[in-house]
Amino acid sequence: MARIGIQHPIIQAPMVGPRASLAAAVTAAGGLGSLACATFGPDDVRTEAAAIRAVTDGPFNLNFFCHTPPDPDPARAEAWRAALRPHYLELGLDPDAPVAFANRAPFDKTMLDTVLDLAPRVVSFHFGLPAPDLLAPLRQAGILVLASATTTTEAQWLEAHGADAIIAQGAEAGGHRGMFLTNDLATQAGTLALVPQIVDAVGLPVIAAGGIADGRGVAAVMALGAVAAQVGTAFLFCPEARISHAHREALSSARSHDTAITNVLTGRPARGIVNRVMREHGPISPIAPAFPGAAAALQPLRVTAEAKGHGDFSPLWSGQSAALARPCSAGDLTRALIFEADAVLARLRSR
Amino acid sequence: MARIGIQHPIIQAPMVGPRASLAAAVTAAGGLGSLACATFGPDDVRTEAAAIRAVTDGPFNLNFFCHTPPDPDPARAEAWRAALRPHYLELGLDPDAPVAFANRAPFDKTMLDTVLDLAPRVVSFHFGLPAPDLLAPLRQAGILVLASATTTTEAQWLEAHGADAIIAQGAEAGGHRGMFLTNDLATQAGTLALVPQIVDAVGLPVIAAGGIADGRGVAAVMALGAVAAQVGTAFLFCPEARISHAHREALSSARSHDTAITNVLTGRPARGIVNRVMREHGPISPIAPAFPGAAAALQPLRVTAEAKGHGDFSPLWSGQSAALARPCSAGDLTRALIFEADAVLARLRSR
Repeated sequence: MARIGIQHPIIQAPMVGPRASLAAAVTAAGGLGSLACATFGPDDVRTEAAAIRAVTDGPFNLNFFCHTPPDPDPARAEAWRAALRPHYLELGLDPDAPVAFANRAPFDKTMLDTVLDLAPRVVSFHFGLPAPDLLAPLRQAGILVLASATTTTEAQWLEAHGADAIIAQGAEAGGHRGMFLTNDLATQAGTLALVPQIVDAVGLPVIAAGGIADGRGVAAVMALGAVAAQVGTAFLFCPEARISHAHREALSSARSHDTAITNVLTGRPARGIVNRVMREHGPISPIAPAFPGAAAALQPLRVTAEAKGHGDFSPLWSGQSAALARPCSAGDLTRALIFEADAVLARLRSR
Repeated sequence: MARIGIQHPIIQAPMVGPRASLAAAVTAAGGLGSLACATFGPDDVRTEAAAIRAVTDGPFNLNFFCHTPPDPDPARAEAWRAALRPHYLELGLDPDAPVAFANRAPFDKTMLDTVLDLAPRVVSFHFGLPAPDLLAPLRQAGILVLASATTTTEAQWLEAHGADAIIAQGAEAGGHRGMFLTNDLATQAGTLALVPQIVDAVGLPVIAAGGIADGRGVAAVMALGAVAAQVGTAFLFCPEARISHAHREALSSARSHDTAITNVLTGRPARGIVNRVMREHGPISPIAPAFPGAAAALQPLRVTAEAKGHGDFSPLWSGQSAALARPCSAGDLTRALIFEADAVLARLRSR
């Protein structure tokens, strides 16, 4: 963490939805704030980075997806629209109106130039790493590169292909699984099992992610050998996250067994609170279009439902530890995670 | 752990297969040895308990299943036999020969009398708790009752129905999921997420299980608030476990992503190393007969395959942390888990 230049080994997980206000608050409190840029164009990234820098001159992380966009599959898209048709009719929407393309683009040359210009301390990737010609310039510029692994095989691949640190993403984690060398959900490992195995498998520093929402979890992953904890869901409870009413309501009552990994919301496996679309079409559906296609036909349903205050068709991303979280400012949470972890370790040593 | 009377907060998980030699070695080393009695009749339990007591006068744990045996379902049994028919033919077995009933009986009055007579310090249950008239006499005799929970709801139920401590079984755990108030595998939580939520949900001591195979894991679950760690897979590497050649071979090369939860081996969800029967018929099959029925038609295949040295049709139970384990005596492992955990905590406190 010395290389990143943060006081506390706490990384706020990048999450689509929250913007600069959350990242800035975490960085200002001594952690590493992160901005999920998957749905942003270059101008959005510039705007949000400037907003962070207006608050703090500390380090922050710009996060990108690096999936391969799928070939068009009109038959599958049509099947998906047909499956959703009853919901369109129920909500008074035209099931035959054209839908916009789902806006999650992989990291590309234009974004590389933007990032080099902005020069964040850290860039992180999900779904592997970008091609060498997109990665090397970041490293040459001295930007630290983090990337997510869900297996030891993925961690070793990331080490061989230029990551500076590995985010070991256990199955508890909310949002998209970073898996990129396997698509077998049945064999994905929990954080407690995954972190020490990745620590043993690579020479790079390992950051733990998945199920960490209070100081007990932070202390636990440190014991497993992680150098830092990446925390997502707990930060969604902070006012700086500015999530939807439906998402906040769902999070506030979620227990450990209220989430599942689903592909119906975007086409890639991601963990969220079980809602109507997951119950009625998933959690795993063979007809959900490939990422990010499944999101397209859901968008009109989502917007209409959220306007009525419910999240039946929204990604209610959450890890399995929402019940451990509590509403407080992001700065207070960053500091509390560390204070609590230290207290836990002090108690254990005095046994 | 003071109530149990063990020196080290390490519980050897009960596992069908290993017998008195493993439990005795763990108890003799200061942990709590456990004997899985699910496939035993009363005489077997007496024999094994006597074998433990011939080695040590320390406390041990007798473990029982308390499922409700399923109603006969000849159509499903027939469909399962039909699905396995090609394997019978391939191995030169008669696919129409009758098979024995799968021998996993729930805890009953005869077993209660046996246990009261043997007076172990601890009894533990999987799949809930037995009926009140079978449970109350154990408690009246001063025997401590442990039971497994996979959700906070199950933990609260166990607390309300007479457990003395809760085993929080995370999704990493090998062998049968203890789930009994839910059958939804998609929402089962990892150890890191589950343990602190159960600690917060009940007033009883919580024992962590799932993915713990070295001192890092022990230290981690202590940080999460557990009073003890239940360790299974790592003890299968000990010579005292006396597992099959096929099982030992599979364990020795298993990585975090080589196991899955399957119902094809017994009819109830259980985690094991992915083998041929899981790949070709599961990991989850709608036609696998209800527990323990699925095991019956597999038994001839299993015996024949194991005689040839492979585990294509065997339950190769394993949690997700087999790669953290190493062959050593069970006594050495019991002590090493604690020494390592203390070293981890000392290192963290001196940061």
